[in-house]
Amino acid sequence: MSIALPQRTALVIGAARSGKSRFAERMALGTGLVPIYVATAEARDDEMAARIASHRRMRADAGWTTIEEPRDLVPALGSVVSSDAVVLVDCLTLWLSNLIEAERDVEAEGRALAAFLAKAEGPVVLVSNEVGAGIVPINALARRFADAQGRLNQTVAAVATQVILVAAGQPLRLKPAPEFQL
Amino acid sequence: MSIALPQRTALVIGAARSGKSRFAERMALGTGLVPIYVATAEARDDEMAARIASHRRMRADAGWTTIEEPRDLVPALGSVVSSDAVVLVDCLTLWLSNLIEAERDVEAEGRALAAFLAKAEGPVVLVSNEVGAGIVPINALARRFADAQGRLNQTVAAVATQVILVAAGQPLRLKPAPEFQL
Amino acid sequence: MSIALPQRTALVIGAARSGKSRFAERMALGTGLVPIYVATAEARDDEMAARIASHRRMRADAGWTTIEEPRDLVPALGSVVSSDAVVLVDCLTLWLSNLIEAERDVEAEGRALAAFLAKAEGPVVLVSNEVGAGIVPINALARRFADAQGRLNQTVAAVATQVILVAAGQPLRLKPAPEFQL
Repeated sequence: MSIALPQRTALVIGAARSGKSRFAERMALGTGLVPIYVATAEARDDEMAARIASHRRMRADAGWTTIEEPRDLVPALGSVVSSDAVVLVDCLTLWLSNLIEAERDVEAEGRALAAFLAKAEGPVVLVSNEVGAGIVPINALARRFADAQGRLNQTVAAVATQVILVAAGQPLRLKPAPEFQL
Repeated sequence: MSIALPQRTALVIGAARSGKSRFAERMALGTGLVPIYVATAEARDDEMAARIASHRRMRADAGWTTIEEPRDLVPALGSVVSSDAVVLVDCLTLWLSNLIEAERDVEAEGRALAAFLAKAEGPVVLVSNEVGAGIVPINALARRFADAQGRLNQTVAAVATQVILVAAGQPLRLKPAPEFQL
Repeated sequence: MSIALPQRTALVIGAARSGKSRFAERMALGTGLVPIYVATAEARDDEMAARIASHRRMRADAGWTTIEEPRDLVPALGSVVSSDAVVLVDCLTLWLSNLIEAERDVEAEGRALAAFLAKAEGPVVLVSNEVGAGIVPINALARRFADAQGRLNQTVAAVATQVILVAAGQPLRLKPAPEFQL
């Protein structure tokens, strides 16, 4: 399977363990540009720090430069997006979770991200989870998170040139949608 | 994106906060017919009543007539479906929830809805949730609800002329499915 | 709707009550080959045993031979897969659940299944659940199960000639994906 080059911004969504990150990595590497990985995970303990460091080394071997930014995503993107590089953000779900924990205004942050992406001067691939397709959770925080995640995905998808749903490792293009362009 | 006119009945499914209602509204308005909104939400307290009233005013400004019917959906549809109007039902998930609470026979109600839709004399767009794609809930009522929702979606999809899945605000046509018509 | 003949191996995924099993059955019967049903459900009590027996009788009336195998799936497939028959495995989710309960190495079992399927000498249709699209469960076992299910689906999808997502009873082909073959 050859992977289409992202014209500018691709949002890759999918369930947990759907293969969305691996697909996004292949999509980014397929551009042949300098690959930059923006990791939004934050080490909370020694075990997680070790796991993050191990992932960073593995990506370095595959040619990636890794930047860690759990919260200030737009400034981080501003410093690395260019027409010579391809930037992969993995993932918006951890970013959103970090923002909620820090009591940031997630709606405003989502709009700022979309505004940046709409005029980004180089290709960006963003990975995000689909979390609203199960039974509505009883837990109020979980419900609030699912709502915020769904809205963020819609906001980013609205400006993305491509939206791809991954299930069982298989990509499905949602945008552009040929059947609705008739 | 131009939106195809529903030939007769369109089922729009998606996760919570997937953008399915907004897509369904645009699809209905795209027909140019008189738009009628059948709301199945029921006010349980003053706060919810205020929110429902606010939504109704916003829709009125956009040209919609709103009918509220939490349970007796088929008679309500019978009174408004016509070739001059487009009827939007938002949503089957709240309707199902109201039926279960009232201890109605949800299988029979689903069959009656499908029978009505199969010979409806005007276009109907129905919004429904996908709720079975998470871990199977431990809670027995949640499991029963997910089963009933899945069956209702299948029953309505079987008679619908179009079935559209919405994710991150992006529509994907499931029916008619060109790739399976070969 | 006519259903394309599986070239060799089809993975049918979907939410609970999405209609995936019924679609898989029609797909298998559409081949015109001798239909063999491999059931991975295990009777835990009299009520479940009665339900399983009732399902087996119904399938027998429709021409199916049923084999019950809750754990040793690859040997069971080895004994029935042939170019004269079509084998339906329903489902990988119950199989995975049985393997975890028996403390088997689910990664190794998944790889062994994929290795078998990659050179199977007859068509096999496998049904599996999508379970990772809800909020990440608090329960650690549920999280572990969702991870294992997602990985198993990816492993099988990688060797399958077709991957089909079913929602509201409607099939959507994920693999082969024409739009990514450009």
